[in-house]
Amino acid sequence: MPELRKDPIVGRWVIISVERGKRPSDFASPSLKRRVSGFCPFCPGNEYTTPQEIYAIRHDTSQPNGPGWSLRVVPNKFPALKIEGELQKTADGIFDRMTGIGAHEVIIESPDHLASLSRMQRKEVENVLWAYYYRLTDLKNDPRLKYVLIFKNEGEAAGASLEHTHSQLIALPIVPKLVREEIEASRKYYDIKERCIFCDMILQEKEEGLRVVLENELYIAIAPFAPRAPFETWILPKSHQSCFCPPDGSFNLLAEILQMVLKQLDKLLEIPPYNYIVHTSPFGEEENEFYHWHIEIMPKLTKIAGFEWGTGFYINPTPPEVAARYMREVQI
Amino acid sequence: MPELRKDPIVGRWVIISVERGKRPSDFASPSLKRRVSGFCPFCPGNEYTTPQEIYAIRHDTSQPNGPGWSLRVVPNKFPALKIEGELQKTADGIFDRMTGIGAHEVIIESPDHLASLSRMQRKEVENVLWAYYYRLTDLKNDPRLKYVLIFKNEGEAAGASLEHTHSQLIALPIVPKLVREEIEASRKYYDIKERCIFCDMILQEKEEGLRVVLENELYIAIAPFAPRAPFETWILPKSHQSCFCPPDGSFNLLAEILQMVLKQLDKLLEIPPYNYIVHTSPFGEEENEFYHWHIEIMPKLTKIAGFEWGTGFYINPTPPEVAARYMREVQI
Repeated sequence: MPELRKDPIVGRWVIISVERGKRPSDFASPSLKRRVSGFCPFCPGNEYTTPQEIYAIRHDTSQPNGPGWSLRVVPNKFPALKIEGELQKTADGIFDRMTGIGAHEVIIESPDHLASLSRMQRKEVENVLWAYYYRLTDLKNDPRLKYVLIFKNEGEAAGASLEHTHSQLIALPIVPKLVREEIEASRKYYDIKERCIFCDMILQEKEEGLRVVLENELYIAIAPFAPRAPFETWILPKSHQSCFCPPDGSFNLLAEILQMVLKQLDKLLEIPPYNYIVHTSPFGEEENEFYHWHIEIMPKLTKIAGFEWGTGFYINPTPPEVAARYMREVQI
Repeated sequence: MPELRKDPIVGRWVIISVERGKRPSDFASPSLKRRVSGFCPFCPGNEYTTPQEIYAIRHDTSQPNGPGWSLRVVPNKFPALKIEGELQKTADGIFDRMTGIGAHEVIIESPDHLASLSRMQRKEVENVLWAYYYRLTDLKNDPRLKYVLIFKNEGEAAGASLEHTHSQLIALPIVPKLVREEIEASRKYYDIKERCIFCDMILQEKEEGLRVVLENELYIAIAPFAPRAPFETWILPKSHQSCFCPPDGSFNLLAEILQMVLKQLDKLLEIPPYNYIVHTSPFGEEENEFYHWHIEIMPKLTKIAGFEWGTGFYINPTPPEVAARYMREVQI
């Protein structure tokens, strides 16, 4: 019997369609195999082809915008939004417009064209997380900006246009609808219960154990109760933390769990394309009792079709309990 | 300068990224060319491979579940939801579940394996619309059901698993989030203005003319102000009509405009994959002053990636004014 499940935070229903039940090997997706072929603007020596770098981790003797780096952050050459200009809001009859003020940056995670987040050194993953944090902290100073979405598209099927490993961020002059919905729902829950809904969810997941993928001292990875996609996995800090930051000044354990989950997905689904996104509190309300930052990882195995477009409902052929068990059992 | 635009109904923002501005020929998508190859369960003679038909248009002498039909509606062989069983709602700590009661049907639009909605006879398209209507009317009698989403996935990239031309419907025991949002927003607008927001939008579009794609006596096709995807097109009845039904007992003019829009897209984008969905009022509130049924057509030209997943925001490289002009100018 198929089952409808509701995400406790945003109230999104999904159909867990067990009749269509799928094992990891049923998902045909071409493995992501990187190879050096043709010109890559993110490779060392080609720094002149990207806009000027905003942040980099460099060897002591190296010069900005030249080789000798282990991580670079540059503006996107084809930005969705632009940092220059004035934020103007105008009406057009019943419609609303706003100038496209914002930032669109690329975090080049490694100089090695063949590297991937799941297989690089732990220290390098930590540096990627630090780059996220520094950019968030810097962009917060721009009063026009309300939110920064950090995300990663891995593989062409997940929307990556360049294969050299990278993440992106887009800074926005408004808090996006999905984040606003999460925050409002969390606030409402807190108003009634005086507890964070994510903290309650983590507690229940730990008690039941069925959907826990992995945990370390500070973080837990779970298959959410109402996942939109097969093998969707969330990483959350186990203690309440409303915005993305390094607890005790280190990202070591976050790097560890993120990399472990990505390794598990690689092994189970043969290096699938995936997206991940970081959901954190908006600027100006970073410290609060009700919202809990987290990472949502979504392997790209199914297609979004008319039904999903038209309803906001998702059909998922793999129950999260099954996905979590596969993840726990995989040998890395 | 990029621009942010807000959909006046659900409040979804999109980024119109003109810097990335794209003409129709810039969208690389493999043309959908059908060909007879291998076994097709939707072709005449293979009726025994589908579940028993629910509705069909047949030659007088033909028998159900055999050849001799021009349209068939059958249950989906791998249904996302099932009609048998009891609707049960249960709590699981902070989570909510419901048995997956519903219906999942396939409308096989033509016996011809090589046919497509854009190129079949007008009368055949009318029959498809009548099939939608009859199935809606029939499913309404099941008190467990609250909503029916009618949708079409055309082409593999748009989620179709069989190439033989067909639409689908999924009947649900709840009103889906996206539809609920449209309805609540429309109701709120009506409470303030005593007017339907869609009627106001149509009025403004007709006055400005910029985003009008096509119209006939009863229907208008527009590129919406804040489209999620390039060449997204909506078809709406020009007079207020809250639910999908044949005005004056005919679907002739709806078939005409739907087919014209699909022909324009085929010509402009070289037979692209696409999705369309029908948004109508939920069961039990079919007749109202605030909601306006419509069809949303979305060519599948761009990928949904991390940013869209994480925000509910969409980045669209083709302004709707540009898309509508291309559509108006194309020679069919």
